This record gives sequence, structure tokens and C-alpha cells, in this order.
Amino acid sequence: MNVAMVGGGFMGKAHAIAYAAMPMYFWPAPAIPVRATLVEATNERAADAAQQLGFAHWSSDWRSVIDDPQIDVVDIVTPNDLHEEMVIAAAQAGKHIICEKPLSLNASSARRMLEAAEAAGITHATAFNFRRIPAVVFARQLIDEGAIGDVLDFRGTYLQDWSADPTFPATWRFDKSRAGSGAIGDIGSHVIDFARYLVGEVRQVHAVSSTYIPERPDPESPAGALLRVDVDDWASIQLEFETGQRGSIEVSRLAHGRNNLLGFEVHGTRGTLVFDYEHRDQLKVALADDGARMSGFRTINTGPAHPYGHALWPGPALGNGYAESKIIECFEFFTALTEGRPADPSFVDGYRTAAIVDAIIASTEARAWVEVDSS
Amino acid sequence: MNVAMVGGGFMGKAHAIAYAAMPMYFWPAPAIPVRATLVEATNERAADAAQQLGFAHWSSDWRSVIDDPQIDVVDIVTPNDLHEEMVIAAAQAGKHIICEKPLSLNASSARRMLEAAEAAGITHATAFNFRRIPAVVFARQLIDEGAIGDVLDFRGTYLQDWSADPTFPATWRFDKSRAGSGAIGDIGSHVIDFARYLVGEVRQVHAVSSTYIPERPDPESPAGALLRVDVDDWASIQLEFETGQRGSIEVSRLAHGRNNLLGFEVHGTRGTLVFDYEHRDQLKVALADDGARMSGFRTINTGPAHPYGHALWPGPALGNGYAESKIIECFEFFTALTEGRPADPSFVDGYRTAAIVDAIIASTEARAWVEVDSS
Amino acid sequence: MNVAMVGGGFMGKAHAIAYAAMPMYFWPAPAIPVRATLVEATNERAADAAQQLGFAHWSSDWRSVIDDPQIDVVDIVTPNDLHEEMVIAAAQAGKHIICEKPLSLNASSARRMLEAAEAAGITHATAFNFRRIPAVVFARQLIDEGAIGDVLDFRGTYLQDWSADPTFPATWRFDKSRAGSGAIGDIGSHVIDFARYLVGEVRQVHAVSSTYIPERPDPESPAGALLRVDVDDWASIQLEFETGQRGSIEVSRLAHGRNNLLGFEVHGTRGTLVFDYEHRDQLKVALADDGARMSGFRTINTGPAHPYGHALWPGPALGNGYAESKIIECFEFFTALTEGRPADPSFVDGYRTAAIVDAIIASTEARAWVEVDSS
Amino acid sequence: MNVAMVGGGFMGKAHAIAYAAMPMYFWPAPAIPVRATLVEATNERAADAAQQLGFAHWSSDWRSVIDDPQIDVVDIVTPNDLHEEMVIAAAQAGKHIICEKPLSLNASSARRMLEAAEAAGITHATAFNFRRIPAVVFARQLIDEGAIGDVLDFRGTYLQDWSADPTFPATWRFDKSRAGSGAIGDIGSHVIDFARYLVGEVRQVHAVSSTYIPERPDPESPAGALLRVDVDDWASIQLEFETGQRGSIEVSRLAHGRNNLLGFEVHGTRGTLVFDYEHRDQLKVALADDGARMSGFRTINTGPAHPYGHALWPGPALGNGYAESKIIECFEFFTALTEGRPADPSFVDGYRTAAIVDAIIASTEARAWVEVDSS
Repeated sequence: MNVAMVGGGFMGKAHAIAYAAMPMYFWPAPAIPVRATLVEATNERAADAAQQLGFAHWSSDWRSVIDDPQIDVVDIVTPNDLHEEMVIAAAQAGKHIICEKPLSLNASSARRMLEAAEAAGITHATAFNFRRIPAVVFARQLIDEGAIGDVLDFRGTYLQDWSADPTFPATWRFDKSRAGSGAIGDIGSHVIDFARYLVGEVRQVHAVSSTYIPERPDPESPAGALLRVDVDDWASIQLEFETGQRGSIEVSRLAHGRNNLLGFEVHGTRGTLVFDYEHRDQLKVALADDGARMSGFRTINTGPAHPYGHALWPGPALGNGYAESKIIECFEFFTALTEGRPADPSFVDGYRTAAIVDAIIASTEARAWVEVDSS
Repeated sequence: MNVAMVGGGFMGKAHAIAYAAMPMYFWPAPAIPVRATLVEATNERAADAAQQLGFAHWSSDWRSVIDDPQIDVVDIVTPNDLHEEMVIAAAQAGKHIICEKPLSLNASSARRMLEAAEAAGITHATAFNFRRIPAVVFARQLIDEGAIGDVLDFRGTYLQDWSADPTFPATWRFDKSRAGSGAIGDIGSHVIDFARYLVGEVRQVHAVSSTYIPERPDPESPAGALLRVDVDDWASIQLEFETGQRGSIEVSRLAHGRNNLLGFEVHGTRGTLVFDYEHRDQLKVALADDGARMSGFRTINTGPAHPYGHALWPGPALGNGYAESKIIECFEFFTALTEGRPADPSFVDGYRTAAIVDAIIASTEARAWVEVDSS
Repeated sequence: MNVAMVGGGFMGKAHAIAYAAMPMYFWPAPAIPVRATLVEATNERAADAAQQLGFAHWSSDWRSVIDDPQIDVVDIVTPNDLHEEMVIAAAQAGKHIICEKPLSLNASSARRMLEAAEAAGITHATAFNFRRIPAVVFARQLIDEGAIGDVLDFRGTYLQDWSADPTFPATWRFDKSRAGSGAIGDIGSHVIDFARYLVGEVRQVHAVSSTYIPERPDPESPAGALLRVDVDDWASIQLEFETGQRGSIEVSRLAHGRNNLLGFEVHGTRGTLVFDYEHRDQLKVALADDGARMSGFRTINTGPAHPYGHALWPGPALGNGYAESKIIECFEFFTALTEGRPADPSFVDGYRTAAIVDAIIASTEARAWVEVDSS
Repeated sequence: MNVAMVGGGFMGKAHAIAYAAMPMYFWPAPAIPVRATLVEATNERAADAAQQLGFAHWSSDWRSVIDDPQIDVVDIVTPNDLHEEMVIAAAQAGKHIICEKPLSLNASSARRMLEAAEAAGITHATAFNFRRIPAVVFARQLIDEGAIGDVLDFRGTYLQDWSADPTFPATWRFDKSRAGSGAIGDIGSHVIDFARYLVGEVRQVHAVSSTYIPERPDPESPAGALLRVDVDDWASIQLEFETGQRGSIEVSRLAHGRNNLLGFEVHGTRGTLVFDYEHRDQLKVALADDGARMSGFRTINTGPAHPYGHALWPGPALGNGYAESKIIECFEFFTALTEGRPADPSFVDGYRTAAIVDAIIASTEARAWVEVDSS
């Protein structure tokens, strides 16, 4: 399976590792991804990234890989505003597609992408890798089995601090025209994906957001000119699910000390599940059935007895990092592709999350509950 | 200082310990509280509780202690619906008053209590003991000193699980006419008090709540008849402070495994503070000034170097329990009383918290932002 | 029950709180301790401490309380070198005795105390309060029930940092003639008590110790003269139990950041128990029976379902502090006294721990395994 | 650089990932490792592993790769008893060598391997990958900078539970003739490596060990015959370093709930460092210089500001797993090789650790302190 990857930054590295390592973990592998062509903005950057990441060819023209009949899969790891055009072109060319999250700048764009992919009959995935962490899949299993009874509410957080310093520059992530939104779409989309994955579809939302740092240095300006930031860097969101449960999400890019606190807490009638990415090999489980005397959160290290455990390391707490979440994502994509079934998560998930993000932003403006457009 | 205490249950025990132990911790003591009279619903229960808790006298008539000229302080630890009448009578009799939280069933009732106390010129306290925990006062000091820069947002939680079991009986806490509200007023009031203490006054709120368990067994019914529950057992609340900061609060009485998770997280421009009651001797502090290489949450065990430390135990992590929070509260009350200054927290705090609780409940009904009546 | 207490420092305060509060927690109480007389080195200090701690009388002559027929119980909270004379005199006068740990400077002294107490037929207790923490008693219950199978090994620690600063003065605790030993006897005795309480008698030990800070400022010297420290401030100890299990203990007074890390970890054939005092309301329990998929440490907050839970606070994680360990100790002592059975822990425990401490010190000198004299 | 790898199990997978991914992380890379030939016991297993792990060729004859002039590096990931013969042959053939730990069955064997490698002038590495974890290297930096003052003592643990179940079969790890020792050499060697890396050379040791499960099922016996276990599964070790510090190590393979608890705690005159592998991205640091009021363990997530941070993920807490420790090890080996300097850790480290392991085993037999042969 020949893969062309568009983009060669941090996320490109993560995907390239996944292509190289997936068969080493999952063997026999559903397919052997071949790192065929890497596309970057310039030939120089493309050549350098291709050598670093083990791609045989490189290009500065993303359309060339879409036109290349040898390419089976197009993997898009560019800034958000470039996703739509590339995805639609790749779909129309019959390529299978992995696209980074958030799928696009807004739900209508994401919907066009989904429709193009469906029309083309390709396999499509949105890279919500975190829902493929073994502890998260284990949480889903426990919910499905009824281990915590009926779900009552969901509590999600994604707190980071990488832009807490006001001198952090105004990259594309602070520009609404390129990023769509700020913390809500960038990191909030991961939590929204958890909410949908673990509980179900969201009916309506209420949100309030802030842009605490309204100006940041222009990275292109040696004189230190400031650019206006037009996206949020903090939000508090309330959710109502279609099946009646409620929940909340908090996202921040300015939470000093919270380097990457992506987490959830799900309360059910018979137990509670707690996860946070900073301890990504662990799921904390409290069960009413343990009785008052023996009751307490079990801190379960995922291992061979848990999802994907046969393919990862031979014991719990040997340790999965960021790379393993991408390796599992890669495995799931190629498994779906070779089995001819929809990927999970697919563009459907990318679109529905975008619809929720749109509703959240609308709610922050309306200061009122907003229904999620679930058409 | 002769104290009469009305109520002899769990909270009465906590207060009685405080009266006995306060001078042992804080010496020289601002005053020596004398456990004079305990009032309970029947003479039998009053006599038993008085002997248990070291009170010299007992009564089943709360008005008798208000008429007793030897009584200096009346301490009210009854169900919420009894507070107003007792407080107003005690104030009119010139007694100093400690009243358990929430101050009353709603803000208008709390306002009448405050006005009566102010008119009488007495010293009055609302028993928000948790704001007197050394780690919480330390958090306030750090904020006041600018250690975390300007406060950006506040995140509070109070998750419990004591009523997660649907067979837990329908005590007065599940009856709106006696409790005023459910989790919002009972435990939420502590978090609201933290928000006000650490950040400032709340301008408006948006909230959603649930009553997950709508019926519970009637404790008076041997046949197991069910009573309707008309108060919330879960709520998610969004806050806007008068000075512009935002925040969220989540409260639950049905969060399996969360025995008593009262906590806050305050993000500032230069740092973050994290507290949770299950680790009540600790404050977690992240400081931007530590720089990327040495930056991480400091888990600081409060001790002699922290608020009240000279009076507690001689080293950090020897350990304060629930009792110490009440002992410090007792110290603060008698210090204010003897120094002739308002207690902190006073009925003002009880009233303002009640106004926020009222706004929260109104918001859950209106499904819209509601201004806090701050008159 | 009239109590005379000899000593009015930190530990005297802890005991006085216990006398006042024990019946409030444990009601009906086995006895009502009356704080009769407090003895301190001078009349002035005795008077001040008596007022602080609620004792009716005071004295600077410890023999006077032993001669006082109204005194039922003598409680000794002085430096270690004073214990023997006081205990033997009190026993011969027929007083029941609570003596702080370590029981004395060495095992032969402790043995004389035990023999005097046994000869007098009194109730005697060594104040190993930490074995009365609910989580520790719960650990013992689980071991007794076979929940973790057969015990394999014991791992204990007591790490503190209060004397890590070399300018901390040379109090009596650094003087072998007054303290007996350093960290080994002072804090190690608590861990040894845990080992005996949870696993059984110790047959032999091997130990190495250090005195990292060999001189400290003389607290009496304004000029800052230095005194030689002749006791250990760190030790590593290996244990072999009579029933074949093995274990290790580490103690330090110079472990920066470890304010009061008293802990144990017990491995059994079917599970593991972990406790540390800095989280004293919790026991961590791993059970083989949970199976690989659901296996992980349960963090159990002790509460009403656990030892002494009916008498403490009405829910888990409301929180026990240092005081509660002393209150339970007090309850156990008066229960034993009124029921006419030996206290637990008694002088037997004080003596046996002293014999182990002696063997440890002998081992550090011999650099070899040393048998514990268990006669 | 053409690599031949002998062995294709769990550890072979880890090494193969490192060869593929190292240049993606460290770019420009010191060298591009080419996965040339994989050797396994049979041609069938070799072929399968080669395809899984991306090797171009395979063989069932390890001597063939040593004779192959195209091979630059031989990587040995076989059971311990095969190391010596392979290493000496490879060295004599001028191959650079990476050998898994423990280097061999005992120190004399390890010494012969070291001498052969030195005589051949090759680059040689012992695969103590854990000392290459960023948090561990950061700990070493802090010690070197004097951040915690002078080191006082070292406390190491490696507790696992993978063989706690007595039905776990008698693989080669339970056979002294193939493994050399049990927990002491297998996992203890990692802790010993930490001790040497962080504090220095060990002068003498005192140890006690147990074989709790003396028989295990023969994996070759369908009838479930039991084989005798002749290696330890638990040990407690005391250390004295050449520079005077002391320490302790505890290792177990039967500690239920401790999946992979490799950790250290280093106390210094000015601070403490704490690490445990289950939280491998974190170093906990307590500093006397923080002062009593602001003092507490800082939980520092390693990231771009820490060792190797530029090459790993762009923010702290994105997360390194087991693979990253092997990727860094690979980077260090090829850097040393291309720069013509000794690898770190090299066979010297493998040999010295073996000498300490030998002394530990001798001490368990002699029940006395044993000097480490440091010749």
C-alpha cells in the first residue's frame, strides 16, 4: 500500500513512524504501508523530510501525488485550512484518505469532504488517535458491558500550557481563517470525540469562551509587531446528549503546569471511569459492586489483557507513548481498508465533531443553548 | 464564653470538638469556649448528646437558650429550614451566632438573617470551614501576592457518592422545603465560597442540573414506600465574575468513587493553583517563573511555614483532618468576636452564596444566563 | 478516670486532645478521661500547659502525681531517658500507664519497665498510635482474612526531613544518652511496630546506618558552638521474621521533600497492600483475584465500613488527621483498662521493638546479621 | 550501517523499531541503520521475524552474519547464556556490537567479552536503555550541577508481578544455567546501572534473597510436570559506594500490582530526586532552596527543555513509551560509533554491573558483606 503524505512537521513524523512500525507491532499486518512520496511546501523541505521520514520520493506539488496512479493512500497533515481542497481532490481521484483533525474549518466544509469521500467510495479516516489509546477503548468496552451501569454524565478536559506565555508567536493556530477556532477546535475536538465515542451524539451545547491573550508577536516580524488573535484560548462547555445524559468540557491553552491534560470522567449508575492522557496507560475504575469496604478507584495499567495488548508490549506499564496511539490508528485504518468496511473514526466523526464545534462557537456568541445540526 | 449549640448530630460533634480543642491548638486562645448547653429535639437526645459532647446542660427548647442571659454564643447546626427563625431570635436576643451552611433555604431568607444580625450588632459567622483549611488560605495568599499573576479562570468541583445508591433513604436533604436545594446548595455552596474567596464576586451564572434518582425510600416507611426527590443531585455551572474572570463548577452526589472530592484549580497569567480536599494538607503550585526546565507542579504540604501552622502540628504532613478545619473556624470566630471585628466568613458570605445558589437554580429553570442579585 | 500527664509539649497536646475528644467520637465511651494534673519541668510551664490543655491541676514534681491516690492513669510524654524511672514508680504505685515510644533507651530498660508493670498488674500501653490508624488496622484485617494470601515480604519506610538542614539544633533527639538512638529508635520504631503488627516477630536483622551530619549547633550556645551528634540519621535494615518472611526498612531524617513518609508495602501470594501516612486515610490493595483485565491497585478511602468507622466521620475522605490516631489509641487503652484485658499495643510491644532496635544497632556495629533477643 | 540482529522476540521488536525510527526522531541522524539480516533459531522463524521487523535478509546461523563482510553492527538479543560466544566471535570479526543486558551469566564471562571487544577496537554497548530515559539523564544533570548538593544515599526498586502466579511456566529466565540469576540479574541489573550512573561505583554489598516459588510448570510438558527454579525471585540489597554513600535496592518478580515499578530516590544534602518508570516522563525534584513555604516535590514532565527533548515530541507529556528509550539508546550508539568514542553504556558498564551482581549473589550465600571485584 503506497502512501503519500502531505506535510512533514511534527504530525508527519508521528504518521511516518506509524507506517514504519505498525507491522512490527501488528503481525501479521493487515497491510504493509510503503512510504512512497512526501509532499512539503518546497522541494528542499520535501527532500529533507522525505529522507528523515523514510519516504522514497518527494514533491512540492500535492496535486502530483493525487495524480499518481501508484499512490493508494493520501495522508493529510497540513494546517486545517488546506484540508478541504486536498481531501476532495484525493477522493475524486479514488485515493483512500487519512486526514488530521479537526477535519476542516467548519461543519459545512467537513460535510463537503465527507460527501466527496462517500461519493468516491473510498476509505476515509479522521485522525482522532486518542480514542484508540488502549485505556480509552477499554473504557468503551466497560461501558458497553454495563460495568458502570447507565451513563449519567461526562466530564472532559483538555488543558495545555504551551501558549500560556504571551510572547509565544502568532502562528496559524491563532488565526481563525486558517485554524477555524482556537482551543475549542484544536484540542476540544479530541474531548468531543471522547464524548461521542463513550456516550453518544450531542444534542445541544452551551458554551462560554475567552481570548485571554488578544495579541501575539508576528513570527514574520523582526521588529516584534503584534498580530491580533481572533480565536479562543479557553472555553467552558455544557453538553446534552441525545440520550439525555449531560456533561461538561473545559479546554485551555493557558493552564500553566497542565502540559497535556486530556482527560475524561464518566459517572454511571454503578461506577465511574477516569482517564487522563498524562497517565495514558491507566484507566481508573470505581465499581459499586466492590461494596463499601473494598471500594476505591482501581488504577489499571493496560497490558496484554486489554485492547491491542497482544500487539503492544509484553507487560503492563512497559509503556505506550504518543507514537503507539498513531500506530494503532494506522492499524485500524489499514484493517478497515483491507476489510472493506468504514474506518473508525471516519470522516463521519470528523464532520459530527465539526458540527458540535460550530454549535459551541455559536453558543459563545449567542450566550444561549444551541442545537447541534445533526443532519 | 458560654456556648449553646442547637443540634447534636455529626456537625454538632465537629463543633464540640472545636470548642474543646481550639485553645489547645491556639494558645494563648482568644477566648475559652465553655460548652454550656446543648439543645436537641427531645430531652432524651439532648441529654445523651450533652454527655457525649461535654456540655454542662441540655434542653429540648431552643428558645430557652436564647432567653438564657448566661449564653454568649448560639451555634446552629440544625437542618437548613430551621436556621432563619433561630438566627433571628438569637440575634434579637443579642447572642453572637455561628450558623451552619447553607445559611438558609434561599437568598431572601438569608438576607433577613443578615439584616437581623447587623441590626443587633452581634458577631455572626457562616460555617464555611473549608475556606479555613491552611492550604486554601495559602492559595489565597499566593493570589494576593501575585504569585500566579492575574487570575484567568476558576474551576471548582465537589463530587461525592454517598447517595449514589438509589436505596439511600429520602432524608431531609432530598426535600426542597427543608434543604432549599440538593447538591447545589449543600456541597456547591462550599465551592461557591471558594470561588468568592479566591477570585471575587460572581456577576452571572449559567447552569444545568439533573435529578438522576427521582425517588428514594421513605425512611419512616417500614414498607419501603418511595418519596419523590425534588432537589438536584448533579449540576454543571458556568460563572462570570464581576472582575471579568470566568469559571465552572461541577457538583454531584452520585459520583461513584469520589468520596469527597472538593477541589479547585485556579489558572493565572503566571501560574496555577490546584487543591483537592482528599489531599487537604497539600496545595499544588505551578509557576511560570520556574522556567521550562524546572517547571512542574510543586506539591506543597502545609506545615509550620503556612497559615495557622504555628498552632497545628510541628511538621508538614503530620496531618490535619476534618476536625482541624472546624478548630480553625472556631479560632477565627472567637478572634473576631474578641477583637470586635466582623467574622470571616460572616453572614454576608452566607447571603451572597445563597444569592448565587438562587441564580444557579433560576438558570437551570430558565436555561439561560442569570444575573446574581448582589444588592 | 483521672489522668496525670507528665510532659506538655507537642505530644502532650496530642494526648490532651485525645482525652477531651475520645468520648465525642466513641460514644458511649468506655470511660470518661478527666484531665486531672499536668506535670512539667517548672511550675510556670506546668501552669501554662495545664491551662492550655484543660488540666485542672499542675505540678513540677512528677512524683507528686504518682503519690496522688486520686490519679488513675499516668501518661508519660517526656524525653526517652526519663521513661524508665517514671514508669517503674508509677507501676509500683498501681497507676495504669500510657508511655510514649520508644519505650526506653534500650531493651534491658524496657524489660525492667515491662516487668514492673506486669508485677503491678496494671494496664500498660506503648503509644504506637500509628498502628491504630483505620487503614493500618484494615490492612491487618485483610492479611488475617487471607485476602492477599500468605505474606511474602514487608517493605517499610519512614523518611522525614525535619533535620535535613545542618543548622537544625542539637536537641535531645541527637544525644544518645537521652534518646537511645536516632532515626532508628525514634521513627524506625513505628515501622518496626508495623512489621510486627502485620507480619509477626522478627528473628534477625542486618543493618547499616549513617550519621550524615556529625555536628549541630548547641541550642544553649548563643555563640553557635557545635555539639557532636552520636546517633544515626539514616539506616537501611534487612529483616527476617520468625515465620520465614523477609523484609526491609529504611529510615531517614534527612530526606528532603519527604515530610513524614511513614509507609509499608506488604506482598503476599495473592495480593499487595500499600500504605503511606501522607495519605493516611487510604489503603492501596492489589488482588490477584481481580484477574489481569480488572487488576490494579484499589485506592480505598477508609470510612464507616472500616475499623473505627462508626466513631469517626460519616463518610470516607472527610478526613482523619494526626489527632484521630491518638483518639483511637486513647479509646483502645480505656477499653482494655475497663475490660481488664491487656492494652494493644502494650509494654510487650514496646519491649520487643526495643529488642529489635538494639539488634539493629548491634548489627550496624558488627556489620553482620544479629539475632533479636526474644526472651 | 548494516545491522544484523540475532533474536527476534520482544526485544528484537524493540530494537527493530529503534533502527527504523531513530532517524525520524534524531535528524540529521548520526547514521542510517539498515536492517540487513535477522537471525533466529530456525529459518522459518527467521523469515517470519525478518518480514515483521523489516529486515532484508534472514538466517538461522548466527555465524553467517559474523562472516558477512557487509554487516557493520551485530545486535544480540538472545537469552543470556548465548551472549558470550556470539560477542567474542563478532568482536574478533571486527563487528560493532550492541548486546542486551545482563551482559552475560557472570562477571568473568562479561570480562572476557569486554576484553575481546577492547582488543578488537570495536564500539560496544550494553543495552541499559533505561539510563537513557530523558528524566533519568535529567536527574544525572541535576546531580552533576549540584542541584541537590552532595548525594547522601540511593534507594532503588524494581518490582514486577509477571511471574507472581505460580502457574507461570519455567522459561529460561528461571534456569540459572541460562539466565545466571533471577530478579537480581534480570531486573536488578537495571537498578544497579542507575546506581552507578547516578552515584558512582559500588564498593561492597550485603544482600538477602528468596525463591518464593521453588517449582514451576515445565513449558515443554503437556502433563504439567514441575521444574525446579534455581534462581531468586526477590532480593533486598544494601550498597556502599566507593565514595562513601550508602543505599538499598529491592527487586521482586512477585509483587502483585507492581507491573513495572523501576524507580530510584536519591537524597542529597540540598534536595531529593525521585523517579519511577511507571511515570517515565516525570522527575520529581525537591529542593531545599525553595524554602519551607514553597517547598514540595516538583513533578516535572520532561519535554523540549530536557535531554533529547528537541528530538522527541514538541511538548511535555505528549508521552514517551518503551520504544523511545530504545530509540535514544540507538541514537547514542551510532553517535559514539561515528564519532569514534566509547558508547555509553558500554561493555564496561555491563561488566561492572555483572561484578556487582556476582557480589550480591555471593553475599546472599555468605550472609555477609561482600566486596565488589573492581579489577
